[in-house]
Amino acid sequence: MKPRDPLPARAHTLPAKYYTDRDVYDREQERFFRGMWVCVGRLGELSDRGSFVARHVAGDSIFIVRTNGPGEPDAVKAFQNVCRHRGTQLCRDEHGRFQGSIQCEYHAWTYGLDGQLLGAPHMDGTAGFRKGDHSLLEVRAGLWEGFIFICLADSGPTLEQQLDDLPFKFRPWRMHELRRGDGMTYDIATNWKLIIQNFSECLHCPNLHPALNKLSHYLSGENEPLRPTYMGGRMDLNDGVETMSMDGTCPRAFLPGLSPDDQRRVYYYALFPNLLISAHPDYVMAHTLWPLAPDRTRLVCEWHFHPDEIARAGFSVDDVREFWDMTNRQDWHVCELAQAGISSRAYRPGPYSDREDLLYAFDRFIVAALDDAP
Amino acid sequence: MKPRDPLPARAHTLPAKYYTDRDVYDREQERFFRGMWVCVGRLGELSDRGSFVARHVAGDSIFIVRTNGPGEPDAVKAFQNVCRHRGTQLCRDEHGRFQGSIQCEYHAWTYGLDGQLLGAPHMDGTAGFRKGDHSLLEVRAGLWEGFIFICLADSGPTLEQQLDDLPFKFRPWRMHELRRGDGMTYDIATNWKLIIQNFSECLHCPNLHPALNKLSHYLSGENEPLRPTYMGGRMDLNDGVETMSMDGTCPRAFLPGLSPDDQRRVYYYALFPNLLISAHPDYVMAHTLWPLAPDRTRLVCEWHFHPDEIARAGFSVDDVREFWDMTNRQDWHVCELAQAGISSRAYRPGPYSDREDLLYAFDRFIVAALDDAP
Amino acid sequence: MKPRDPLPARAHTLPAKYYTDRDVYDREQERFFRGMWVCVGRLGELSDRGSFVARHVAGDSIFIVRTNGPGEPDAVKAFQNVCRHRGTQLCRDEHGRFQGSIQCEYHAWTYGLDGQLLGAPHMDGTAGFRKGDHSLLEVRAGLWEGFIFICLADSGPTLEQQLDDLPFKFRPWRMHELRRGDGMTYDIATNWKLIIQNFSECLHCPNLHPALNKLSHYLSGENEPLRPTYMGGRMDLNDGVETMSMDGTCPRAFLPGLSPDDQRRVYYYALFPNLLISAHPDYVMAHTLWPLAPDRTRLVCEWHFHPDEIARAGFSVDDVREFWDMTNRQDWHVCELAQAGISSRAYRPGPYSDREDLLYAFDRFIVAALDDAP
Repeated sequence: MKPRDPLPARAHTLPAKYYTDRDVYDREQERFFRGMWVCVGRLGELSDRGSFVARHVAGDSIFIVRTNGPGEPDAVKAFQNVCRHRGTQLCRDEHGRFQGSIQCEYHAWTYGLDGQLLGAPHMDGTAGFRKGDHSLLEVRAGLWEGFIFICLADSGPTLEQQLDDLPFKFRPWRMHELRRGDGMTYDIATNWKLIIQNFSECLHCPNLHPALNKLSHYLSGENEPLRPTYMGGRMDLNDGVETMSMDGTCPRAFLPGLSPDDQRRVYYYALFPNLLISAHPDYVMAHTLWPLAPDRTRLVCEWHFHPDEIARAGFSVDDVREFWDMTNRQDWHVCELAQAGISSRAYRPGPYSDREDLLYAFDRFIVAALDDAP
Repeated sequence: MKPRDPLPARAHTLPAKYYTDRDVYDREQERFFRGMWVCVGRLGELSDRGSFVARHVAGDSIFIVRTNGPGEPDAVKAFQNVCRHRGTQLCRDEHGRFQGSIQCEYHAWTYGLDGQLLGAPHMDGTAGFRKGDHSLLEVRAGLWEGFIFICLADSGPTLEQQLDDLPFKFRPWRMHELRRGDGMTYDIATNWKLIIQNFSECLHCPNLHPALNKLSHYLSGENEPLRPTYMGGRMDLNDGVETMSMDGTCPRAFLPGLSPDDQRRVYYYALFPNLLISAHPDYVMAHTLWPLAPDRTRLVCEWHFHPDEIARAGFSVDDVREFWDMTNRQDWHVCELAQAGISSRAYRPGPYSDREDLLYAFDRFIVAALDDAP
Repeated sequence: MKPRDPLPARAHTLPAKYYTDRDVYDREQERFFRGMWVCVGRLGELSDRGSFVARHVAGDSIFIVRTNGPGEPDAVKAFQNVCRHRGTQLCRDEHGRFQGSIQCEYHAWTYGLDGQLLGAPHMDGTAGFRKGDHSLLEVRAGLWEGFIFICLADSGPTLEQQLDDLPFKFRPWRMHELRRGDGMTYDIATNWKLIIQNFSECLHCPNLHPALNKLSHYLSGENEPLRPTYMGGRMDLNDGVETMSMDGTCPRAFLPGLSPDDQRRVYYYALFPNLLISAHPDYVMAHTLWPLAPDRTRLVCEWHFHPDEIARAGFSVDDVREFWDMTNRQDWHVCELAQAGISSRAYRPGPYSDREDLLYAFDRFIVAALDDAP
């Protein structure tokens, strides 16, 4: 992706502590993963009223439950996964479905899907006890284009404010209509920011991704300036290439409503802190990042397709999964090498080229958001 | 078990730190596992003079050796598992037998079963060296009803003082005569106190243990007030039930000397800090707790029977082991859920019911013993 | 090995912290593994110009590359394994060969074998960028008798100064001519100094190594006084014994140039901080120590033989490997027992015998080098 402007002289990578230090990591968790809206999955994972997923976000266990019945507008609620009696976790499994209410396995305290305490055996005579004081602890939740977001902070910007003008930008892809075709999970020995940085420049493509570089040249496209909550840009498909797949052909129809220009491009956007969207002519790839430690990140990569294509006889994800799994693994390999090198006492910040402009801007954003001295 | 009195209003569970904090854990280890008498096994494990077991207690490795010969009164001694020469551990195995003396594998320093240094090759000419200065470091040890206890503190209450009136209370079961029929070891991702709390209320039984609740109803029985070093109570067997086993029948004779009342009851007592005794009409179950970390505990569960029954043709532990292993696993499951929930930043103390009176008293005991503000 | 003089009264082992404390360990890493020359392997591992090995020393990843071509004098260079662009590790594998230059996998920055930056794509237009500012970070490297050493400190004693008079002492074995016959790697749950101490006395031999004691009696030989950078001594082969092997016979020719006296002896020298040399009549055993934590050490044990013997039909290492692997495992066993005992709160320093004089001197050296109060 083309840079916009030359970088200032002395535009160097961040000091090692931003990738290795537990204190920095903890402050990032607080600032970005508790203070911002975090993507926790797709609504498609919750098929029915009462269906839930449980997620770990910034050390908390949260479950998200679908609350609308058939024919009602999509709705979810998110709760802390903690019984208000003796603290027992309510959901042990990552997926499941509540049958009308949420019951603790230990002493059978029972809550409605709205979090209200409905039953608490033998508590009725207890001095000072009122059911209304012991609802589940609710967490803000929201939906955008089929993505579920939660925010652990009780106040602060709304999801709409954080999304800024992305709803307008991504409208043509009608992502809420898309369904998951397949997905893969990776555990990567690297800091979460190194993955975002890797995603945000293609200077490494000719050396690391020769196959990708044949489909979409690393000097094609253009970056947008960094915005307060996201950054990204586009790359162009090479002549004769239809989409990003093993051989560059596209056995699927393009997504309905895309302009001729958008049918020739791939858009790569990083929504802070943890969602990476790669919009292709015929599918959308979404990475969600789950930091586990300063030097460990879990990454879930999923490919979403139009339901008409999924329903078509002979539909296959193989060409897309094979291409991106190969490319992903090349990326995680160098992210791990970077983490290992940065962790050495010998590491010192190195110079960015003008084609790494988004990385430099992202670094400035991180440092500023943590209130560190620039 | 029935509560004695209503709890005060605002009787809530403990703050999270008592289950998750390393500093609290360390102070508990010091106060309860170094300062009190800890149960480390059964005398039946030491068949002969010189037989030993090695145990980890509060970070120390201790071995306990039987010192009496045949026909002599039962006697054990306990020592720090450290050679006085260069600090080498003397026992690597958990069980074994010394042949008359205790020899270090490294440089052959040799001690008597009384801990006296008998031989130290090439030390004789060393300036200022006297064998008498280098005996093994002895630890207080004692026996009660076949249970072995040690106390890492050199002074403080005797074992008899800690046992209080329990010897009188448990006399009818003649536990020193009983022999181990079987046992199981569990590693549980929970704080040791959550296991004691789980053991000390049956409010969870109808929901978690439907099979147990059919044998002994959760509202039967009665609790004793908490004592300085133990707590407990009794539950009654339901009509037609003979003992706690898979089908409630008892293929064994009752223990000799039990009153008709005691033949219809199960007594559950927690002896602080680490022994849980469950006295049944025909066997005694003993759990010993071994804290490994704030959130990890090893638990050894053993079933002890009368030797006449063990000797009888067709004797089997299967009905008892199957019932209690099932029930144990149900309990450890919710103990792990409780640990996970309490470890969340979202946890806050919740209200106890009147049927959790022993737990509230136990919490007060813990807080007071640690000299924490109430 | 015979002691030289009686030890002072109260010559006791070190306090536990020298074997268990993270702070002491970190200071040792700094003082001994960053401040001294550390043995990192044998030149024989680097067959050609461009061949490299990567090693972890005191938390840094270092690679050592052979820089001489055929017919040129032996030469190596050592570099920090970190690209000067974004910190990526350059070598992931432990062994390999660079083809003329060293290229980073991520963005293709390319360095010469001398560490000079040769190419940096898209950096040319970057303000203030000069290739000469971004050479690889070089680490001092040196060779002695086929052993490769590096020193992470930029200044301080040369390798020759650290080796002191060892080059003179070991000249007869012509170790630079020897080639590796076999090797084994052990992970040992013990502090690195306990291995050096174990290596430096044979008081434990009659009890722990009865087979060794039959080949070379523990009271034979003589120790040298401790020197500033090494310590050691010799032991004599028993009558009828030819070398240290399973049966004491030697199916190989003695090394050329050894005196009749040296053909009847084994020399055991510890070169601080991490090389143990055991020079036998027909082979040299070398242990290198790699501290991983206060209580964990990796040890590489290799046996080096004369190339004429290796080339001979029927050459075998089996008798030597079998004998020393057995003996090594006996030693690591007691080193682990010692680490376990010393880690107990009950450990207190114990008395050294006069036959442990080198250990006492080594302890004094450690304490003094760390600037601790004696």
